[in-house]
Formats: sequence, structure tokens, C-alpha cells
Amino acid sequence: MVRVGIIGTGRIGKVHIRALNSMLDHARIVAVADPYLDEKAVRDLVVSPEPVKFTKNVDEIFTDPNVDAVFICTPTDTHVEYSLKAIAAGKHVFCEKPVDRTLEEIRKVMAALEGKNLKYMVGFNRRYDHNFAAARKATKDGKIGKVECVRVTSRDPGLPSMDYLKGSGGMFLDMTIHDFDMVRFQAGADIDEIFVESAVLVDPAVGEIGDIDSAAIVLKMKNGALAVIENSRRACYGYDQRCEVFGSDGLITVSNDAPNNAMISGADGVHAEKPYYFFLERYEQAYHDEVAEFIKAVENDTEVPAGIYDGLMGVAAAVAANLSMKEHRPVKMSEII
Amino acid sequence: MVRVGIIGTGRIGKVHIRALNSMLDHARIVAVADPYLDEKAVRDLVVSPEPVKFTKNVDEIFTDPNVDAVFICTPTDTHVEYSLKAIAAGKHVFCEKPVDRTLEEIRKVMAALEGKNLKYMVGFNRRYDHNFAAARKATKDGKIGKVECVRVTSRDPGLPSMDYLKGSGGMFLDMTIHDFDMVRFQAGADIDEIFVESAVLVDPAVGEIGDIDSAAIVLKMKNGALAVIENSRRACYGYDQRCEVFGSDGLITVSNDAPNNAMISGADGVHAEKPYYFFLERYEQAYHDEVAEFIKAVENDTEVPAGIYDGLMGVAAAVAANLSMKEHRPVKMSEII
Amino acid sequence: MVRVGIIGTGRIGKVHIRALNSMLDHARIVAVADPYLDEKAVRDLVVSPEPVKFTKNVDEIFTDPNVDAVFICTPTDTHVEYSLKAIAAGKHVFCEKPVDRTLEEIRKVMAALEGKNLKYMVGFNRRYDHNFAAARKATKDGKIGKVECVRVTSRDPGLPSMDYLKGSGGMFLDMTIHDFDMVRFQAGADIDEIFVESAVLVDPAVGEIGDIDSAAIVLKMKNGALAVIENSRRACYGYDQRCEVFGSDGLITVSNDAPNNAMISGADGVHAEKPYYFFLERYEQAYHDEVAEFIKAVENDTEVPAGIYDGLMGVAAAVAANLSMKEHRPVKMSEII
Amino acid sequence: MVRVGIIGTGRIGKVHIRALNSMLDHARIVAVADPYLDEKAVRDLVVSPEPVKFTKNVDEIFTDPNVDAVFICTPTDTHVEYSLKAIAAGKHVFCEKPVDRTLEEIRKVMAALEGKNLKYMVGFNRRYDHNFAAARKATKDGKIGKVECVRVTSRDPGLPSMDYLKGSGGMFLDMTIHDFDMVRFQAGADIDEIFVESAVLVDPAVGEIGDIDSAAIVLKMKNGALAVIENSRRACYGYDQRCEVFGSDGLITVSNDAPNNAMISGADGVHAEKPYYFFLERYEQAYHDEVAEFIKAVENDTEVPAGIYDGLMGVAAAVAANLSMKEHRPVKMSEII
Repeated sequence: MVRVGIIGTGRIGKVHIRALNSMLDHARIVAVADPYLDEKAVRDLVVSPEPVKFTKNVDEIFTDPNVDAVFICTPTDTHVEYSLKAIAAGKHVFCEKPVDRTLEEIRKVMAALEGKNLKYMVGFNRRYDHNFAAARKATKDGKIGKVECVRVTSRDPGLPSMDYLKGSGGMFLDMTIHDFDMVRFQAGADIDEIFVESAVLVDPAVGEIGDIDSAAIVLKMKNGALAVIENSRRACYGYDQRCEVFGSDGLITVSNDAPNNAMISGADGVHAEKPYYFFLERYEQAYHDEVAEFIKAVENDTEVPAGIYDGLMGVAAAVAANLSMKEHRPVKMSEII
Repeated sequence: MVRVGIIGTGRIGKVHIRALNSMLDHARIVAVADPYLDEKAVRDLVVSPEPVKFTKNVDEIFTDPNVDAVFICTPTDTHVEYSLKAIAAGKHVFCEKPVDRTLEEIRKVMAALEGKNLKYMVGFNRRYDHNFAAARKATKDGKIGKVECVRVTSRDPGLPSMDYLKGSGGMFLDMTIHDFDMVRFQAGADIDEIFVESAVLVDPAVGEIGDIDSAAIVLKMKNGALAVIENSRRACYGYDQRCEVFGSDGLITVSNDAPNNAMISGADGVHAEKPYYFFLERYEQAYHDEVAEFIKAVENDTEVPAGIYDGLMGVAAAVAANLSMKEHRPVKMSEII
Repeated sequence: MVRVGIIGTGRIGKVHIRALNSMLDHARIVAVADPYLDEKAVRDLVVSPEPVKFTKNVDEIFTDPNVDAVFICTPTDTHVEYSLKAIAAGKHVFCEKPVDRTLEEIRKVMAALEGKNLKYMVGFNRRYDHNFAAARKATKDGKIGKVECVRVTSRDPGLPSMDYLKGSGGMFLDMTIHDFDMVRFQAGADIDEIFVESAVLVDPAVGEIGDIDSAAIVLKMKNGALAVIENSRRACYGYDQRCEVFGSDGLITVSNDAPNNAMISGADGVHAEKPYYFFLERYEQAYHDEVAEFIKAVENDTEVPAGIYDGLMGVAAAVAANLSMKEHRPVKMSEII
Repeated sequence: MVRVGIIGTGRIGKVHIRALNSMLDHARIVAVADPYLDEKAVRDLVVSPEPVKFTKNVDEIFTDPNVDAVFICTPTDTHVEYSLKAIAAGKHVFCEKPVDRTLEEIRKVMAALEGKNLKYMVGFNRRYDHNFAAARKATKDGKIGKVECVRVTSRDPGLPSMDYLKGSGGMFLDMTIHDFDMVRFQAGADIDEIFVESAVLVDPAVGEIGDIDSAAIVLKMKNGALAVIENSRRACYGYDQRCEVFGSDGLITVSNDAPNNAMISGADGVHAEKPYYFFLERYEQAYHDEVAEFIKAVENDTEVPAGIYDGLMGVAAAVAANLSMKEHRPVKMSEII
């Protein structure tokens, strides 16, 4: 039984609370902290057979001896501070991505973890998606031989607000970081080199704040495989989340999920439902299984599926992509890390 | 807030408990009864912010003033007795299908409901499946014009045990009853006539106990539409649950759901995951939404999507099918009801 | 090298001419007859390295010693007369379906063939369709075990003219005859019993001339398998030609073909091309391969894939269906033949 | 009526002969030349209502006043010589791709064409494929708004012989040239910049002769769109020929074609036929329609769909790709042409 403290009760914090509610056999929430806590609303959300502490003082989570593991669901700039405090207090950590926007800060967490038998998992939720996980499993089971090319298609349904974008760290750190992780996950290898073609095609306002909204990225992996990422901040047909893994003995194709499979044939063609629009719906099962994987790793003292190294690598890839974009040349990961 | 008493904590009772756990804003379980109650196991399953009564005495559910609505999840031969007691006690009822195996008994429940402002819902879970519901919605939205032909393909993954089959009331009452309801639901009309071709193709032992395991059924609906049902007790590729609705302006096709959409192309062809095997996985979302529909109807005093009339009609269709099989002729529903 | 005489140069005659044009290594057209011959138009259509005789006198085909095989592509009421003449003249025959509308007449052809080493093939073109043929091959290769249920969905894109319908012999003889053959082909067995639910849903005018435009048919096959046929004279989304074969070890599903597979995802859903509308486009490859099969059978003295027995059985099934409709009861094929 | 002279009767020459055979209303072959002519074999292949000249002397094609248009189906190093002779003789030209491996030579053809009212079409057959053409048409019809990203997946079924590869000019000139043309075609724009990640993953022997067998290419188009090409010389599941066009208002997806659509569901999953393996089968319809487009352009004096400019641009892109590979940097097309 893992006793959990939640830090941050915004959108993603709520997702994790709901996931934990449904695995009472293995975990229970014992404390919830948020500087801006709306206690009434959150109290109704948390299901627990025991009393739960609600507080606006985040530090109470670290000092609470009842807490075995901490979920850090606060804004990015607090992740490292809370991570270090949690580790110092001997608590396991589940931290939302990105751990930080700089490699230096993430390395502090790595250093703090050294020699400690603590689980530290980073929230790359897509790894646990039923489709992407099935693809990876097929590759590991030898179904397609040696991986030769990975393709990730990743398009958001619509442009976030300019306010959000200004604080996002740029598209590569905010959005493509998931795709870098997916490429690493599906290839079973680290990235060796990145080249970026980027563009502002969705909205010129994005360019005015120095960001981009579209990219085509080509990568070389350490195991020799090639990879491709297609990004856009806006797909009018919904959240476009697909991948392909091409190997010496076959090809795995992952399509989008849709709310239903009813197909309507009419005089003007055959029509189907478009993919899910909202990431929380699309990845509902993935978010749930992600939490289950973390709890399992803590309970059984096994490795987390995506740890601090993966968190570092995702950010490093984003840094390399930014450099490639700036200098318009292929960038080796060895220049970055 | 609907306060629920559960009767029966077997497989389907547990499904409803889990559904209710997740809608604490609208419903909560306050009492659980089962003559064979394993209190410890069930207590861990029920999530409730308030104390819950657990009892082996079913009657305590009916006398409990805290209970607004009763879920009857016990064997078929108890449904009418419990329904009548619940109605007499002024409680809303959700009853698993079939309400009973005879029309006479079901009519007793109908009579008891007369003049009472009580909700009585029958567990035709498939109506709430995301795919079947989307098909019905498309028809209602006028996407395919006037319905002319409904086809239901319904095959169980594997033959149940002979013990189960002996007590099942025969394939039409046990299994096809869902398909009769689906035909009525998708056609938006009652059945007018039924003709059955049946066979024992899966296992001769089924024939030895006087039952069948395969059928092709053709129906005429009151609104003039035609319909077809294909049944088998065994589909080696999983639980085969599909339908088509053909209309004057189009066709709706509902396919099976599978655990993931990863497709593997190899030297020997293109391979995909087979459909879900287990009905609880296939209809997990449907069972959840079914309960939500019931709770909504009670909360808002609106009509239940499938009431005692639908329960009666499902059984009447099974009775007609049995008669058609016995006399090998088309049977009018007006001969039955 | 098979030397062919064509009788009838209407729509289907032209289809066969084009097919024969493309197999000059194995066959060549040496004579073309049509009482209403438009010689100039047809002359341009026929490709042959040798001189071709064009005539309005059909009998010249039978007396021409150059002709090895005759294609009968004239209206149904001439099929038997021309068949008998061709057989008497010692020529192989490819005859369009139906051979005749009465069993008596077809039996005359059967009798004439007795003891003669002549090929007689009936134009059940769908057997040679790449999809239906692949389905049959899979069954024969043991991919789905023993066949337990065949389903044929067959809908024309639009109602023919009333003039055509008046002379068509009724829907079962004109249209469903193909589906009866498909059921026999996919089941690998003859029909044992037929029950018909029919309706006039497309146009009341069809009912006024004593015909129907919609049907749901259930069949039992001699090998114990069940079967279902869905018919309509009008599918607004095109020519709906599908089948399924369910067996003890699996299911084969054949979908419609479309002109292209480009899929468009937009804000209002995912859209694909509808199926082919016109039967000559849909079955272009099938018509070609049908002719090739006939030529092969003549060249190699092997069995034709669909002979006079299949022609008889198709018509017999239509007769049984008409009787089932008239008397509203299941009809045994043994009552008919 | 276009009177055609064929030069070259190898594999692709035969494909064009068969296409021309089937459009006798608009074109006929009047002369066939091949230095290595097997007259008997080819004579049987050509269908023509008039006498056809067969010769081993290619020059007889250019001097033959009966010939309106020349099909150049000989090895690449003869294309320019024959093109220039044909143009000088006032004949329209259909030339197989690539026109030449150097831009200088292709420019000679461009210069020769200047001021002449002659059609010169280059054999980019994939543009006429029913799927790719439908995709382009949808974009032109405004179905997806402004094009923002094109993706071409192009994998050969298996590695050609080392002998072939040695004379092929390298993967980009031999294989990717089609994909560069497809990107231009689908984007409706010229290429602006190319960056190549390449690898030898299929067979080290390919690397030993200085070639590659795998590539991931990222491009920027003159209209601002991004593009991606995935290449491999070996896909065990067949000839992988797909594309996607992503736009401001939607996405077009083109899948592979397969010999049939029969799907088999069994205990171990759902299985479908793999894509066509052989390019002549996959593109049979495209090769046919390509010839029809050329004949139509000559008959009606309209523009050819892919002319000498497209031929030049395809080779220029291959040259740029080779430079990008060599210097491992993005290469502007303006550096090349």
C-alpha cells in the first residue's frame, strides 16, 4: 500500500487523483497540498477510506511521515525544488514533464537521487497508451526485427492562448518533448542527432513572440535507426497522435482513437467520427495506467518505466532542436549532453 | 443525490458497484445485500463517503428508508419477487435482464408499476455502448433517412458450461434477448414477426439438452423495416458484437472494438488485434453509462431509456422465436402478446 | 487457341469482347452476330489479328466451322434456343445468367449436354471477383474451419426503370439469383431450405407491378450451415456487394471496393470515397477473369467453375424464394427440384 | 488519332504497348524499334488494325513520317540523344524517368523544345495513380485548405541486384526521384531546401559500393510547406507507397493498395492481405492512365501533366540530396539550379 501526497490540484493533479481513487487496493491519497487550494472542491474529488490532510503549505507534504510518495503536479519552475525536498525527505517522486527547462537543474535532481533507493518517475504519459504500448511490445517481442525507422505524427487540436505560449518555453520544450520521448521509446535507443525544419504556418502571432507552430524533424538514433517527427500546433480534425515503427521484418502502424467506430455511408461518401479532440480524453487510459505503473514500481521496488534519465533526455533533445533551428544545421546530442 | 441499495454482489453486481463508485456527485451506495455475502471482499469494493450497511438479509434493503433506488443483480428467478417488493416500498428499480422468463410474471411488475411515479429500468446494457448509441443517434438525427433493414451480428466468444446452459432458459432467452432489444432499439420500432433457422453446430452436447447454439433469424418490424440476427455461441476470434442499419439515405456500420489499434504488416500479411473477448471488457463503458442513465432518470424524473415494456418485449421476442423454431414457421408477435 | 463467336453486342456483349481482346494468346474472336448489329461500332471494338465475320444472322455462328465456342449475350428468352443450337453444332458455350426463367427449359440444355464433351459455363461473374474469390480460397484452404454461416449483402445502387422491372421476372430471378449463387459458392454446398421476408420500401410503384424491392432471406444449406441474404434495389451510397463467411475457426469479411482509398479528415469527421456505383466498374476485373476461366477450361479440357447445374440451382432458388414469399413459409428445395 | 513509335521493348516498353493497345480509338502503334528487338515476341504483343513496322534501327522511328509521337523506353543514358532526335524530327515525346542523370543534359532537351509546339512528357507514373491523383484533386478542390506538410512513405519491396545498383546512379536518382516528384505534386510547389539523414541498414554491400539503402529526408517547399520522405530499399510486407497531405483545414491520407480486401479473423488476430509487391501490379492503372494523359495532351494540344521542367526538378532534387548527404547540411535548391 503506497501512501501518496499530491502537490498541485490543477487539471493534471485532478487526473492523477482520479486514477489513485480507483486503485485503493494498492495506493491511497493521504495528503493534498496546493498553495491555491480550493479545499471544498478537492475534498469531494478525493476518495479515501482514511482521513486526508488538505493544506496550502506544500512543505507539510515533505514532513508528513505518512507520505511514501509525492506527485508533483505544479508548474514547471517548481518541479526541481519540490523534487529535491521530496528526495531529501526520503520520498518517492512522480514528477510531471518537463522536470525543468534546463539540463543543469535536472542534473541536480539526478545527483540527489544518486545512491538513494528512491523511485523517480517522469510523466511521459504516452508510453502507457494502449496503442503505443502495444507497438513497443510488438517490437520487443521481435515482431518487426531490427528497428530502422520511427515516425511520430503529433499535432495538437488547436493553438493554445498566446499567454500560455509565452510561458511555455517554446514548442520543442512544451510539445515536442513528448515526441522525442516517443521516438526514444519506440526505437529503444537514445537520440544521436537532430535536424529541424520549422515554420510559422498556423498563426503569425506565434512567430512574433519568437516561437514556431509547425516542424518536420529528422533524427538519427544511437542504434543507427532513422526517425521523423511531424508537428503542428493545430489539426482541425482533432488531436493527431500516431506513430509507425519500421523494421527489418515488418511495420507497426498506430492510428488515432475515436469516440466511436460507427461509419455512415451516404450519397456523398463514407463518414466516420474524427479522433478525440481533448488530450485528457485521448489519454485517459494512459494517465490511469501511468499512475498504476508508478505505484507498482514503488510497491515492488522495480524500475520505473521512465525515470530521471528519460526526463533529462527529453529536455536535452528539445535543447538540441532549438540549437538546430537557430543555427540551421544538424546537431549532435553530444554537443548538448 | 440518489441513495442506492445493491442486491446481489456477483459478477454483474460488482460491475454496477464500480460504476456507482465513480459517480459520487450523483449517487452513493448506502446498503448492500446478498444472501451469500462475502462482506470483507465487498466492503473493500464499495467507495462511499458515508457508512454503508452490509447484510445477508435482502429484505433489509426494502425496509431501509435511506434507500431511494434498488439494483437487482441476483439470479433471474428472484427478479420479479424483489421488483415487486421494491415497488411496494416505493423504491426505483434497476433490474438485470431478463426480468423473468415468462410474460405472466413480467406483467405482474408492469401492473405494480401502474400509477406509481417510480423508475424501472431493465439492464439492456448494449444500448449505452458508445458505438451502438452513436448509430442510433445518427438514425435519429436523420442521417440515413427511413430505416429499411437492421442487421445484428452477435456471437459469444465461447460456449458456456453445460451446467449454465441447462439453467439458461435456452439461447433465445439467455443470449438473443439482447439482440432482439438491439433490433428494436436500432429500428426504432417493435417487432411484428419472427422466423428462425437454428442449428447445433458448435457442440452436439447442446442439442442433447434440447438447446441450440447457432441461429439465423429474420424479422419484420412494425414500421415495415426488415431485420436479421446472426447468432453463435462460439466465435474463436472473440466477442462478435456488430450491427448495421440500412436506410433510404444511407447505411450505418458498427464494428467490433479491440484492445488496441496497432497493425503489424509483415511478410505474411497485415495483422491486427482481435476484438475484446470478455463481455465485461467489451461493454465496460456501456455498463458505466447505463448506470449513469438510470441515476440521471431518477434524479431528474425523466424517462428511463429501457423500461419494463422493453423488458417484456425482449422476452416476448424470445418466446416467439422458440415457437417459430418449434413449429418451423413465421410467428407474429400478436400471437404472443 | 479458342476461336470465339459472339452472339449479342449489347452492354454485356461488349464487356466480353473487351476481355477477349486482351487474351489474344489464348483466344480470338472470329465471328460476331447480332440481329440488331451496328457493324461499324462493333468492328472498332473487336481486336483481332485475323479477319472477323460480322452478321445479323445469328445462325451463321452455329454453322461457322471456325467457331469453337459461343458467347450468348442476348436477352434471356433466347438463351436456351441458342444454347441448344450451339450444343447441336458441337460448340462450347458461355451463357449469360439466367439460362432461363423456368427449370424445364434449363433442363433441356442439361439433357442436350449429356454425353457431350462440351464446356457450358454460366455467367455468375461474382465468383471471379478478387475479393469473393479470395474469401472462397481462404475457406478451401481451411483458414476458418467448417462453414457455419454465410451472409451476403447485395444492394443495387438504384431502382431500374419500371419497363425493365416489368420484364425482369421479379427481383429474385433478376437480382437475388447472383446472391443465391454466392451463398452456394461460399458455403461450398447446395441450398436446402429458403424463407423470405420481403417488402416494397423503395418505391410503391414496384409493388403495383407485383414485384418487391427489399428482402431479408434466411437459408439452410445441405451441409448444415445457415445463411442470410440482405437485398435492396437501392443503396444511395453505391453498389453494396459484400459477404461474410463464419466458420468454426474464424470469420472472413469481404468489404466493398472503392475507386480510391484517399481519406480526408476534417473538422466535421473523416471521409472516404463511397463504393463503386456501376456494376461494370465494380466487377470489371471479375468479368475479365470469368472469360479467362472459360477459355482456360476449353483450352485445357478442365471443368468450368460454374456450369449448367449451377445455372439450374440459381433459378431453382429464385423459384423457391418466390414460393416462400407467396405462401409465407419456409420452402424446401426438394419441393422445387 | 495519335500514331506512335515505340523505342525500347523491355519491361516498361511492354507496359506502354499494352496501354496503347487498349486505346485504339485515340492512338495506335505504327512502329517499334529496339536494337535488341525480339520481333516475334513483340509482334504478338502489339495490337493494331494497321501494319506495324518492326526494326532494330532506332533512327527509322525519327525518319518515319507516319510517327506523330515517340515513346522512349530505353536505358537512361540514351534518353537525351533520342529526345533530341525526336524533337528535331518534329515528334512529340514521352520519355521515361529520369530524362538524364545530369542537369546539363536535361537542359539540352529543354533548349531544343523552346519555341516548338511539341509535347514532352516525363514518366512520373505515380501522379496518375487513382489514390495519389484523388489526394491531389482533393487539395486542389480546397478540401484541406493551405498545404502545410506533405509526407511520402516510399519503400521498395526488396533490394535490387548489386549489378543494378552499381549502374543506378544512387538511391536518390534511381528511387527517391519519384518521391521528390510526389512531394512537388502534392504540395503544388517546388522544393526550396533539402536535408538528408541516410543509412545503410538493409545490406552492408550497398554501402561498399558507395550507395545507401535507407533515408529520412526533410524538405521545405517554396510555398512554405514542410515535407518528409521516408525511404527504404526493402519492406518485407511489399511495395510501401503512401502519402499524407496535411493542411490548414484537414488531412488527406493515402494507404497502400492490396490484391483483395478479404479480412480473416481468427483465434490469433485479424489478418488482411499485404500490399502489392510488384510495382507493375501496384501501378498498373497508373501506367495506363499516364499513357492516356499523354495521348490526350497530343490530341487536344493541351499541357502535359509532367513535362521537361518536372523532369529537371526531379533530378535537381536528387542532386541536392546527394550534396546534403555528402556535406551533411541542408542544401538550398538555389545552389543546384
